[in-house]
Amino acid sequence: MSKLKFLALGGMGRVTQNLYLYQYQQEIILIDCGIGFPDIYMPGVDALIPDITYLLNQVEAGAKIVGMILSHGHDDHIGALPYLLPNLPDFPIYASPLTAQFAHDRLLDKKVDRSIQVLSDRQNLALGQYFKFQFIAITHSIPDTKHILLETPVGKIYHGSDFKLDKHPVDGRLSDMDFIEQIGRDDNLLMACLDCLRVERDSWTPSESTVGPALLREMKDVEGKVLVTLMSSHLHRIQQTIDACKQLGRKVVFVGRSVEQNIKSAAQSKSLNVPQGLLIDKKKMKQIPDNKLCIIIAGSQGQEGSSLVRAVYGDHQIVQISNHDKVIFSADVIPGNEIPYYSAIDQLAADEVDVVYPDIRPDIHRSGHASRVEQELILKLLKPKFVMPIGGADRHRSLFKKIVAKPLSYQDWQILLPKTGEILEIDQQRVSVAQRISLSAKIIDGLGIGDVGPIVLSDRLNLSKAGIIVLILPRFKKKFDFNKMQVISRGFVFMKEADEVIKYIKKETISIIQGLGKNVKDEELKHRLEKRLARRLFKIIRREPMILSVIWDS
Amino acid sequence: MSKLKFLALGGMGRVTQNLYLYQYQQEIILIDCGIGFPDIYMPGVDALIPDITYLLNQVEAGAKIVGMILSHGHDDHIGALPYLLPNLPDFPIYASPLTAQFAHDRLLDKKVDRSIQVLSDRQNLALGQYFKFQFIAITHSIPDTKHILLETPVGKIYHGSDFKLDKHPVDGRLSDMDFIEQIGRDDNLLMACLDCLRVERDSWTPSESTVGPALLREMKDVEGKVLVTLMSSHLHRIQQTIDACKQLGRKVVFVGRSVEQNIKSAAQSKSLNVPQGLLIDKKKMKQIPDNKLCIIIAGSQGQEGSSLVRAVYGDHQIVQISNHDKVIFSADVIPGNEIPYYSAIDQLAADEVDVVYPDIRPDIHRSGHASRVEQELILKLLKPKFVMPIGGADRHRSLFKKIVAKPLSYQDWQILLPKTGEILEIDQQRVSVAQRISLSAKIIDGLGIGDVGPIVLSDRLNLSKAGIIVLILPRFKKKFDFNKMQVISRGFVFMKEADEVIKYIKKETISIIQGLGKNVKDEELKHRLEKRLARRLFKIIRREPMILSVIWDS
Repeated sequence: MSKLKFLALGGMGRVTQNLYLYQYQQEIILIDCGIGFPDIYMPGVDALIPDITYLLNQVEAGAKIVGMILSHGHDDHIGALPYLLPNLPDFPIYASPLTAQFAHDRLLDKKVDRSIQVLSDRQNLALGQYFKFQFIAITHSIPDTKHILLETPVGKIYHGSDFKLDKHPVDGRLSDMDFIEQIGRDDNLLMACLDCLRVERDSWTPSESTVGPALLREMKDVEGKVLVTLMSSHLHRIQQTIDACKQLGRKVVFVGRSVEQNIKSAAQSKSLNVPQGLLIDKKKMKQIPDNKLCIIIAGSQGQEGSSLVRAVYGDHQIVQISNHDKVIFSADVIPGNEIPYYSAIDQLAADEVDVVYPDIRPDIHRSGHASRVEQELILKLLKPKFVMPIGGADRHRSLFKKIVAKPLSYQDWQILLPKTGEILEIDQQRVSVAQRISLSAKIIDGLGIGDVGPIVLSDRLNLSKAGIIVLILPRFKKKFDFNKMQVISRGFVFMKEADEVIKYIKKETISIIQGLGKNVKDEELKHRLEKRLARRLFKIIRREPMILSVIWDS
Repeated sequence: MSKLKFLALGGMGRVTQNLYLYQYQQEIILIDCGIGFPDIYMPGVDALIPDITYLLNQVEAGAKIVGMILSHGHDDHIGALPYLLPNLPDFPIYASPLTAQFAHDRLLDKKVDRSIQVLSDRQNLALGQYFKFQFIAITHSIPDTKHILLETPVGKIYHGSDFKLDKHPVDGRLSDMDFIEQIGRDDNLLMACLDCLRVERDSWTPSESTVGPALLREMKDVEGKVLVTLMSSHLHRIQQTIDACKQLGRKVVFVGRSVEQNIKSAAQSKSLNVPQGLLIDKKKMKQIPDNKLCIIIAGSQGQEGSSLVRAVYGDHQIVQISNHDKVIFSADVIPGNEIPYYSAIDQLAADEVDVVYPDIRPDIHRSGHASRVEQELILKLLKPKFVMPIGGADRHRSLFKKIVAKPLSYQDWQILLPKTGEILEIDQQRVSVAQRISLSAKIIDGLGIGDVGPIVLSDRLNLSKAGIIVLILPRFKKKFDFNKMQVISRGFVFMKEADEVIKYIKKETISIIQGLGKNVKDEELKHRLEKRLARRLFKIIRREPMILSVIWDS
């Protein structure tokens, strides 16, 4: 019998860029299609998309993608659809209603025309001749999240991406624990992939529904407006804010592109329950007295240019914040965003605006990810032969092995921690690494896809550290005319104070070029000049600007 | 009677750049002289130093600096000494023995010759004709930390910079609570400045001495080497690591410039207690079996180029990490450092090295700052008429007001939250803002002081987002020779894929210049060209590279 192949196209040990490939003979199933978010070492980058070279090669060689299954509507699971689908052959895509709606929005946004098929929970569907799958209801920080039970010729696989086990979900739709238990009891599960992101927390992640009373408490007795900022796809959180507003007699206004768009999608898929007359258009906001108003506003990470941040710094056209208002950060800071996030909070505090955030009020935000105890519980119930932690960084995967899988008597060979680019071969007895490929995420920068790579990024980082010096070296009949040499710099030193440095650069340039003699070719001359000048500059000023020399023959 | 003036030269609402000025008539006292640390919006910047323009103006106008008092040896309290002292007249500087030693090292490092005078606790010293002060022993994350009781003609002031109230300090030197209580009982204190950084935490900060047993537990039964990384000035932490090593029979090696230098200073001021024969020179490390070795290594924030990070990525000459070793991060991540800090931990986890860090073992690090309860206690004991939270961000200062001072019945007029640049006037009845000045920190970049300012930084940030395009426009007898135009870019698009964009740029450049006509002056032409080209590029590629045009007449 053939083996099943497994590959994470977005890499392993990264939290985002979720795109998993399962292949049996010539049939391929894809799960999720998400983007990654750039970090501080990727200035100017908007997003990362998984490298699908391997997939394209397989298709080229005759393999067929028999379906794509989407687990939930977060961008790190669906955001790459508009970038990748146009390069791939046609295949059916399945999702829950809300996920389909969000995916549809992402596609529409980039003018990609593709339909998403909606499938109910526990409904068994065959894909190609080898695969079947079912959706399993599970709770997370966006409604309508699913786990996936995949039937393959080598055995059943439980693909458990992002989840928590919320005992009191806001919409009352519990995780399908009966079904999960039944899988473990009846099905002799071959493998489970499980979200390990929050394994560092030992407790059970508190229910999302505990946030409602906290929001109500914080909103009570506020003299002026209430502003609530949150992840714009967090419809449960939005629902609870709406419920609190209803109870307190506050009208609700949505401000911010992402929030407004998601609300529209939620309305279409009936994922929000909004009492008649509670919502107010933002243009009519001024008609409502401040103490009867709640603004749900985008920008919970303090993102530059977001509605919240513009309001905080007094740059928003319609939202003004005064010191009788209250701002509620109903969102944790995502690692890497600390500076803008806390700057926004500090600015509000400095302006004597009442501001609360999870560091001082833990119950105004709850994570959407399972803690160690929940991960242990689901693993205990599923009893797969092999287990693979996914959706976490390397430290989370390694910790999952140590404090979740090992204590449940899993042996090293049963706990799968593939590295990025490792293609696993799975059969009923064992899992092995069949092949190692290199994966390099494509960079989205503005409208460009993939035209920014490691060299451009490293240039940008270097430019940011000490700027650039451009040397224009005029030459006439093979002789440099140093009197006409021009030195221009940006981001290096303040030009008005730079006279001495510029003089030094000219002097050294002349000495270096003269030292090189006449038999050096242009490319070599420029290369050596740039290198030597860089070294000399570093000695006198301890900076390493990029140096760009241009020989100008006339 | 005259009033006392107060100004934070490093600004308020910032944690670092500590430099406080107290002035009575023509006499000035300075407390601390610290640097600030750059954030992600200041690429290439090494440090910030407080703006002393106001101080220099006062001196110019006849005021006299009668003394500087240093509270403790952290760089945000002493690091600016070598940069600022050379620009100031001579005055005596006072510190505790270890602080004096660290300050001396900083000065020596930059070849500044200045002596620091050591003063014992509770010893009263007159400075000029108006001021007296005493040091008060207090606990913090560096030994020999002091609070300062300043006597002024308008009343006594308790300057309580960074502290915690450690009930079991590692060196047995308790905070002088008797003296603090006596001040509150007898002295009718006028004002207290208190460290509010950790006011978000409601509990009493655990004693530093709880870290010792945790380190011992983590180091026990490690098959290979143990690496402990920590703040290199944290001598109590180093002492506890040494003690654990002694108990476990491991030799200790110090690796990393900052750690090695601080150990030397600690030895000189006898702040470390190291058993004979326990320390090994790093060059002899290879002679010790791995399971008898502990390396105390610099780089606890995952800093690029630090000894730890080079070891983690296999680039260190003498420290190799293998998967039977264990790495202990005995330091919290400082906000803004999350990416490098967790990247180092992830890399170790990926290499199957056992790694522990405070998120999973909270007791291997303890903060050096007082939590809310301790802040409340010291305020209760001191009973000053006015209280000013210092050493925290705006959100901490505002929270201190709300949950520390207000519950102790302080009124708004008694709680001082000056903004950056506000000069306070203090007398026995009231505190008012006498003047507002602007303060702009000087930037240290390499060997340059102050030659990098807002324009250079904004250029660097812009360069980092989309790179630079240099246009060289040859002109001969007032006519542009577009055939010879050169377009060079860095950090914009990958040059090999850039042909089309370069062609587009050339075409648009020609069309823009031709559109401008012939009567435009050069500066105006370049300005308009750069602006219009930027707008067109943004339209087609949604990026905003810096554009630099050079007209080349020949």
